[in-house]
Formats: sequence, structure tokens, C-alpha cells
Amino acid sequence: MSIQAINVRNQFRGKVKAIIDGPVVSEVDVETPAGIVTSVITTRSVRDLGLEPGVEVVALVKATEVSIAKI
Amino acid sequence: MSIQAINVRNQFRGKVKAIIDGPVVSEVDVETPAGIVTSVITTRSVRDLGLEPGVEVVALVKATEVSIAKI
Amino acid sequence: MSIQAINVRNQFRGKVKAIIDGPVVSEVDVETPAGIVTSVITTRSVRDLGLEPGVEVVALVKATEVSIAKI
Amino acid sequence: MSIQAINVRNQFRGKVKAIIDGPVVSEVDVETPAGIVTSVITTRSVRDLGLEPGVEVVALVKATEVSIAKI
Amino acid sequence: MSIQAINVRNQFRGKVKAIIDGPVVSEVDVETPAGIVTSVITTRSVRDLGLEPGVEVVALVKATEVSIAKI
Amino acid sequence: MSIQAINVRNQFRGKVKAIIDGPVVSEVDVETPAGIVTSVITTRSVRDLGLEPGVEVVALVKATEVSIAKI
Repeated sequence: MSIQAINVRNQFRGKVKAIIDGPVVSEVDVETPAGIVTSVITTRSVRDLGLEPGVEVVALVKATEVSIAKI
Repeated sequence: MSIQAINVRNQFRGKVKAIIDGPVVSEVDVETPAGIVTSVITTRSVRDLGLEPGVEVVALVKATEVSIAKI
Repeated sequence: MSIQAINVRNQFRGKVKAIIDGPVVSEVDVETPAGIVTSVITTRSVRDLGLEPGVEVVALVKATEVSIAKI
Repeated sequence: MSIQAINVRNQFRGKVKAIIDGPVVSEVDVETPAGIVTSVITTRSVRDLGLEPGVEVVALVKATEVSIAKI
Repeated sequence: MSIQAINVRNQFRGKVKAIIDGPVVSEVDVETPAGIVTSVITTRSVRDLGLEPGVEVVALVKATEVSIAKI
Repeated sequence: MSIQAINVRNQFRGKVKAIIDGPVVSEVDVETPAGIVTSVITTRSVRDLGLEPGVEVVALVKATEVSIAKI
């Protein structure tokens, strides 16, 4: 199933830089123009998507998940 | 209370660009070097933090909230 | 940008049944074979995606967001 | 403590089909009329709830956690 | 459907102190021994659960949603 | 970068009581006046923040992540 568009407002294109494998979840670090974006997803998804360093991906974040801090 | 450091791996510094006010939650758009990052937070937080266009903030996203898509 | 695949393990295909509009976020009810799946997304996304009753969509849920209760 | 009702709008009843154990979090796959629903919860919760294949459960998802994609 | 137990590790019992109503989501403030716990849920859930000041509730938070900051 | 204030409404101060280490994510149990608050964060964050039993922290929860149940 190909997805045309998604409601997720925050999308960061980049390439997988590194993956730390775990038995259930894995950390996927994506190199983007905004810097490294880190994601934790199931290890099964890492395999199903064929993720490995160099693969082009989009990191997606729903707006309700974004917090704001003052500096 | 001042926070020294937070576990949230994904941090995007920027300036508030626009706020869409609602009775309970508001949308806060932050202009960052990575583009606009959109957040939905409580309207009470918008007031408590004194957010308005131009204010410097950091948008924070926990790694477990980031999804990965292949393009 | 068309997405080939996404890590989000839980995907429920269906048709938009109803939308409750708000100034910042809206509720989108999707009729799926599993029953109604309810989503709250930004009202801007509702417009950008052209959502209205009858439109075919997929409701997506990250595995880390699913809780389990015993009955 | 028995819970009478919960605000979580999306509830999928089913039976645990499989569990992938990890040291901190585990993946719990629930067979529901909607297909397999996958959850990642703490391994301590898996033990506290006595989850194992065949146990009847409800998978719960808060509406703010559901994304919508167009296909 | 009565729920016996839920995997959600963080549970704060208390009484509803105030509700700020919105068209789609509402803010529910719960007075607990730990102080006020604030929740944003759909306004339909507020009605379905019959929430109003004084009602006894439990505020629930999945462990994967908790961030940690150093002070 | 020191953070002055954060929008996250729910803040529980306490001390780290125990940490269960995993290869990707770890469980951090925080002793607070509200009881134990359990968090799952990346193991890299545990190291970067220098978390260990006795360290003073704040557990933070966004209001949109809090569910409400009736008892």
C-alpha cells in the first residue's frame, strides 16, 4: 500500500546513519538537515522496512507529541 | 525550577512564528533551521510560558514518538 | 512525496465517517472493519488532506502507543 | 482496583497471540477481529498482568495518538 | 466492559477539580496527593464518562510517555 | 543549554530509585511524593544524563498523554 499523504505535520527527510539493535526495539539515527533525529521503533519494523545505514527515510512526528521549552 | 538537561534526544531550537489559539489547546509553529516544527500544547501553557511570535524556544520530541517511513 | 512503507505496525483502513471541527484540532472518525477508530489531528491537516466523509484513509498507530488491559 | 470505564476511545478486544520478550520492554501481539494489533509495553507489565498466548485482553489507543494517511 | 488491570504503570488516583471544555478536546484537572495532574482528552469522552468536578478518577500514563530531566 | 521553563504541565520531582538497563531503552524508576513514577527512555539518555540511583530528577508528562479512567 502506497501512502499519498499523511497528517503528520513534522517530517524530516534524511538518511539512516546508525542503528542500535535490540531484541524488541531498536534505535534508528537519521541524519537530516536539522541534525540527527533519533527514533525508537520495533526491531521487526527495522527488518520489514530494510533499514540500514544509507537508506533514505522520513522521520515523522505528530504535532501533539512536540513539547515546547523556553531557553 | 531551571532544568539542566533533559533526556529528550530530539531538540529543535527556533523562534515562534505563529500561534493558532484554541479554547483548550493551541498550535505553535516554530521556525527552525530544519523548517517549521508544529506543536500542539495546552493554551494554558502558551500563556504560562508567555509564547508569542519571536520568542526563542526549543521544540522537544521523545525518540519513542518518532516514526520512520521509506520514500 | 509518496511514502512506500512506514514502520507503524498498526494500520486500519477505512472511510472517514464523521469529522468534528475545532479551531485547532479536529476529531476524525474512521469506519473500519474493526469498528470506528477515532483520531484527533490538527484542523490544518484535515484541510491539507482534504478529509471529508467518504474519503478512504488509513488510521496509523505506533506500537509504543498501545496499552494492554486485562478483562 | 477495578476500572469501570476509560476515556480511551479506541479499544480492540482479542487474545494474546505472541510475545517477544526483552529485558526492558516486550512486544505483545494481540489477535483481534481487526487483525493483529501490536503493542510495546514494559516487560514488568507483561509479568504483572500474567500475559501469555491465549489470554484475553483489550488493546487501548488514545485518540490523540492516531495518525491519518490518505491512500 | 470492566477492566481488571491495565499495563499502564503510572496511576494517580484523585478527584476531578476542574474541566475546561472545548469543541473537540477538553482539559481535565485531577487533584491527587501528588498535586494537580492535567489531562487533555476528547470532549466526547468527558461526556461518556460523566466527568465533572468531584468525580473520582485515575489518571494513567504509559511509561514510554514519561521524560526525565535533571535539575 | 539550560531550560528555563517547559510547557509540560505534569512534573514530578524525585530521586532515581532503580534503573533496569537494556541495550536500547532502559526503565528508570523515580521515587516521588506521588509514589514511584516509571519511565522508559533510551539507554543513551540514561548515560548522557548520568542517571543512577539517588540522582535528583523531574519526571515530565505532556497533558495529551494522560488518560482518565473511572473507578
